[in-house]
Amino acid sequence: MDEMTAHMKGGAKDMEPNLVKLMQALIDTAEGRVPADTVFVNAQIVDVYRLRVARGQVAVTCGCIAGVLFEGRDCADASVPAWEAARVVDCEGRYLAPGFIDGHLHIESSNIRPSEYARMALTRGTTTAIADSHEIANVCGLEGLAFMIEDASRAPLDIKFMMPSCVPALPDEQAGAVITAADMEAFMNEHHGAIFGLGEMMNLPGVYGADEETCRRIAVGAKTASGQVDGHAPMACGNDLNAYVAAGIIADHENTGVEEALDELSRGMYVMLREGTCSHDLANLAPLIVENPALARRCCFATDDRAPSDALNVGMIDNACRVAVEAGIDPVVAISMATLSTADVFGLDHGALCAFDRRGAIAPGKRADVLLLDNLAFEGAPHRVYVAGELLAEDGAFVGSIAPVDSRPGLDKLEGRLRDSVQLPELSLDVFSYKFRPGEAVIDVIPGNAVTGMARPETAEGLRRIMLIERHGRGVEAQLSGADGDGAAGTGLAGRHIGQGWVRGFAIRGAIASTIGHDSHNVCVVGDDPADMLAAVRAVGSGGFVLVQDGEVRAKIDLPLGGLMSDKTAEEVAREHDAFMEAGRAMGIEPPLDPIMGMIFLPLPVIPTLRIRPEGMFDVTTFSYAE
Amino acid sequence: MDEMTAHMKGGAKDMEPNLVKLMQALIDTAEGRVPADTVFVNAQIVDVYRLRVARGQVAVTCGCIAGVLFEGRDCADASVPAWEAARVVDCEGRYLAPGFIDGHLHIESSNIRPSEYARMALTRGTTTAIADSHEIANVCGLEGLAFMIEDASRAPLDIKFMMPSCVPALPDEQAGAVITAADMEAFMNEHHGAIFGLGEMMNLPGVYGADEETCRRIAVGAKTASGQVDGHAPMACGNDLNAYVAAGIIADHENTGVEEALDELSRGMYVMLREGTCSHDLANLAPLIVENPALARRCCFATDDRAPSDALNVGMIDNACRVAVEAGIDPVVAISMATLSTADVFGLDHGALCAFDRRGAIAPGKRADVLLLDNLAFEGAPHRVYVAGELLAEDGAFVGSIAPVDSRPGLDKLEGRLRDSVQLPELSLDVFSYKFRPGEAVIDVIPGNAVTGMARPETAEGLRRIMLIERHGRGVEAQLSGADGDGAAGTGLAGRHIGQGWVRGFAIRGAIASTIGHDSHNVCVVGDDPADMLAAVRAVGSGGFVLVQDGEVRAKIDLPLGGLMSDKTAEEVAREHDAFMEAGRAMGIEPPLDPIMGMIFLPLPVIPTLRIRPEGMFDVTTFSYAE
Repeated sequence: MDEMTAHMKGGAKDMEPNLVKLMQALIDTAEGRVPADTVFVNAQIVDVYRLRVARGQVAVTCGCIAGVLFEGRDCADASVPAWEAARVVDCEGRYLAPGFIDGHLHIESSNIRPSEYARMALTRGTTTAIADSHEIANVCGLEGLAFMIEDASRAPLDIKFMMPSCVPALPDEQAGAVITAADMEAFMNEHHGAIFGLGEMMNLPGVYGADEETCRRIAVGAKTASGQVDGHAPMACGNDLNAYVAAGIIADHENTGVEEALDELSRGMYVMLREGTCSHDLANLAPLIVENPALARRCCFATDDRAPSDALNVGMIDNACRVAVEAGIDPVVAISMATLSTADVFGLDHGALCAFDRRGAIAPGKRADVLLLDNLAFEGAPHRVYVAGELLAEDGAFVGSIAPVDSRPGLDKLEGRLRDSVQLPELSLDVFSYKFRPGEAVIDVIPGNAVTGMARPETAEGLRRIMLIERHGRGVEAQLSGADGDGAAGTGLAGRHIGQGWVRGFAIRGAIASTIGHDSHNVCVVGDDPADMLAAVRAVGSGGFVLVQDGEVRAKIDLPLGGLMSDKTAEEVAREHDAFMEAGRAMGIEPPLDPIMGMIFLPLPVIPTLRIRPEGMFDVTTFSYAE
Repeated sequence: MDEMTAHMKGGAKDMEPNLVKLMQALIDTAEGRVPADTVFVNAQIVDVYRLRVARGQVAVTCGCIAGVLFEGRDCADASVPAWEAARVVDCEGRYLAPGFIDGHLHIESSNIRPSEYARMALTRGTTTAIADSHEIANVCGLEGLAFMIEDASRAPLDIKFMMPSCVPALPDEQAGAVITAADMEAFMNEHHGAIFGLGEMMNLPGVYGADEETCRRIAVGAKTASGQVDGHAPMACGNDLNAYVAAGIIADHENTGVEEALDELSRGMYVMLREGTCSHDLANLAPLIVENPALARRCCFATDDRAPSDALNVGMIDNACRVAVEAGIDPVVAISMATLSTADVFGLDHGALCAFDRRGAIAPGKRADVLLLDNLAFEGAPHRVYVAGELLAEDGAFVGSIAPVDSRPGLDKLEGRLRDSVQLPELSLDVFSYKFRPGEAVIDVIPGNAVTGMARPETAEGLRRIMLIERHGRGVEAQLSGADGDGAAGTGLAGRHIGQGWVRGFAIRGAIASTIGHDSHNVCVVGDDPADMLAAVRAVGSGGFVLVQDGEVRAKIDLPLGGLMSDKTAEEVAREHDAFMEAGRAMGIEPPLDPIMGMIFLPLPVIPTLRIRPEGMFDVTTFSYAE
């Protein structure tokens, strides 16, 4: 069993445990011929199959559940161990629930590296995370994905990586990479078993149009470990929705209302009720389940994105359970949605034969990912979190271990690639000093909403400059080829690799710059003073959020990994985030506008109305550049 | 699309349709850029995901559903086609339901060949059948399985073949074959994709004991198309059940009571509610669903075995739906159990990416296996049965086509092997003329129950002789080696390849013989006269059931294929069965004893109490031969 135990504890995903030996170990333990590693006694077992709570005890060996005995039916007293065991855990009458499975999330959105995300998520009871790394893939391509996989393997959270399906977000985006169906297949051949499914298919026109390359990418999903293709289809309906589902896309986390969710459920899609930091859709969707609890089997939870401060203070999938219960969903049904339903989406309940791969329930032949909960209100972190039978978190504190970077050959090299992701051209003050043209198209910020408006003011009063500066090396190369000619540095890139425009409703005294700008993550800068803007862009360094006023850096969140992720802990990033917010407020950014959230979606060229791109201002409604 | 259409109509399983082309065809059809093959309008769609009925219309192309539009939400009038189509089917307000999926069945138990079984099953709305061919495998080994697969491919029913897991039923059984884990793997390598899962694991002691070969066989399940291992675990509970589930076995059709079914559900097993010819468990299990409809997602239906007369007159899975509704289950829930739930067991809802492989619902991207039903009472055959969009049955009549035997290269050779399966030794009257020993162990028949008792009467009054004669060539070989010595033919085989004993409660004047005798299918004969018994065994010929009285054959059902299956149609076999029953009654076999069912389980050495084996009388409770 030593090899297997090593496998579990190390979290390495490249070693397939011996099916037969594991099967025999589980059977021998269940039958009492071999002592269990751990027996949990005196537990209120959350039975997600029958949607009940029942007193019982559970035997674990080799990281998997070997047996479950219910009091009355199978044993006289659930507090008396029915098996011999190396360790007996007295649950003291607490609830024993399956570990949570987060159906869809972006680690990069938490601004921490995967191993740190794992530590954070484990403290809140997430034991399996289905991660789409399309942010880092837009910056560093498949090397970015490889970094995520390798770094995640340092931690004992099972992060299952989806292949980003839409890199770049639009064919002509100036992103850091292009990932074609052929690239995906090559990567999967090289990293056998490392890719769990195809990530959210966001190219709706590509699907509706039956675009060949789009369909090829979807077909790659069949070759992944789960065979599943995840979706992203806000407001799809009628024959567009039919087309989308007919393509084989199985889940959507973009529903905001009950009617559209029902449309998708009727057509066989799973609906992920999202409760993240940007989007809070769960309460709106809860009536689905309250009115028809049978739909719980086709609905699960997802965080999509979760800021460390929210994750640490309010929770992740545990928070989704809390919101669900507050919205009237039975707590046991909520747990079943957070576990079994997500497992069902991805075939983890019984899709694979190896017990170590099965999960989502307290049942024999499942991985022993279990939570001890004081109650079913989900108001704090779980009392205890076990992964593969090992205690990893206790009352919000991580008690496991993260392997050092140098334990993963090649990880330092991949990390080096990420640390070198910000390739900005030479810039002079001139390029920031452009003039306002009366009547030109201007982004109208709607605080708290990713959608923007388009205004055409006659004066620049109340406006701020907004620029999007390509940072993946195109601008650098153009300069080497003499793009600036005799002009000041960067002026020759304007309208090609440096977009210039104006924004209304983004009050700031000074400048803010960021290497996060969805989805291509070029450098976005907003400000009222060209010198502060230039200083802010320069202060970005190898990546991060920067606030500059009067030539001085007032706050910075370093994001040296791809310009997206910090090196620091979730707690440190949360503190930096708080300090950044405070500095932003001091610089005039007033609520409800969030200095970070208010800016990082302004370059996203797939959400209405006006956006900034490296070529200039872009009207998403007409798909053309605005004058 | 021609290749794909050919694929669908021919039912050939070895051609993988081009995923991308099929995806594009479905999308283009949904979006109205390409006309549909068929549009079903004016339908009451049975929506198994939301458990409702809603008016709508459905577009089909390439054998798959491209789009579903619901009246009110998606279209103004479900009777006006929203798509152009080569053919519009007006459902005239009938219910449009998914085709039924039978979760577990033995084709051989219907005594007809697979292509004929397919024809019969289609008329009752079964469009996917999960078949375990362990009967023929016990006679002809993997050649028998190959015959089943090839013959099934002649018909348009999708029969998914499980690999028989327990051949022979016990290690020392005198069956026609032994199938080891290594044999299974070799077969699967040779017949790529032909095996859908591992068939019911009946070797409970092998599983509980973690026997190496048993565990290896279970592990083979992971390499099948579905990756699933089916179960068979009557009355398993506590740690035996834990061991069984921990081994990765996913479903059980052997539950007869609610409590044992709940035990399995709690541990993550799917429960198949069986409604067959021998076993009628559904009504007893229905309270599971009536009391907790959420369990419908973890419960499905299976026939296990179904005599043609029952299938034709009463139905198959449609009959299970009828019984379910009579037991208080909502008809839409019943349909969802007969379709989506079974699909979920085997990963057919969304486990595979190809639309042609997905099924269990009226939804885009699923195979267009649909039923038109006049009502939801399931009292007769479905009005119409479509498979992959093609009409195959109408009001109980098959309107499709079955390809000729010679369309399948190699099928005639496999069939020849099956026709030569009865290899009986030379027999003389002497071997039938053994004496009763007062106080010897005697089988006590319990009519209508597979379980038997053991009696030790002092006289032979009311008893009949019962013999089990090995018929796979062992006896023939022993005779060639001189086993009979100077004795009469067959006498040297007694107690080695010919079991001799007595049975109580099997009144018959004359003799009955059968080449069906679970699970090794040696020739079983019961009678009151040695001469009639010898004549009956001789009359068996290449296989079948025989009744002989006064030296004359009174009735026969020819089963030349492996001694298990007829060449004839289901209707003919049903008539032969009726005639056989009548002849049996005339010969003194009184109800409730069934002349066929009453005998074919007497050799099964795994059901209590006393059984006959080629070595003699066997006490299943002590696992030893009885004196």
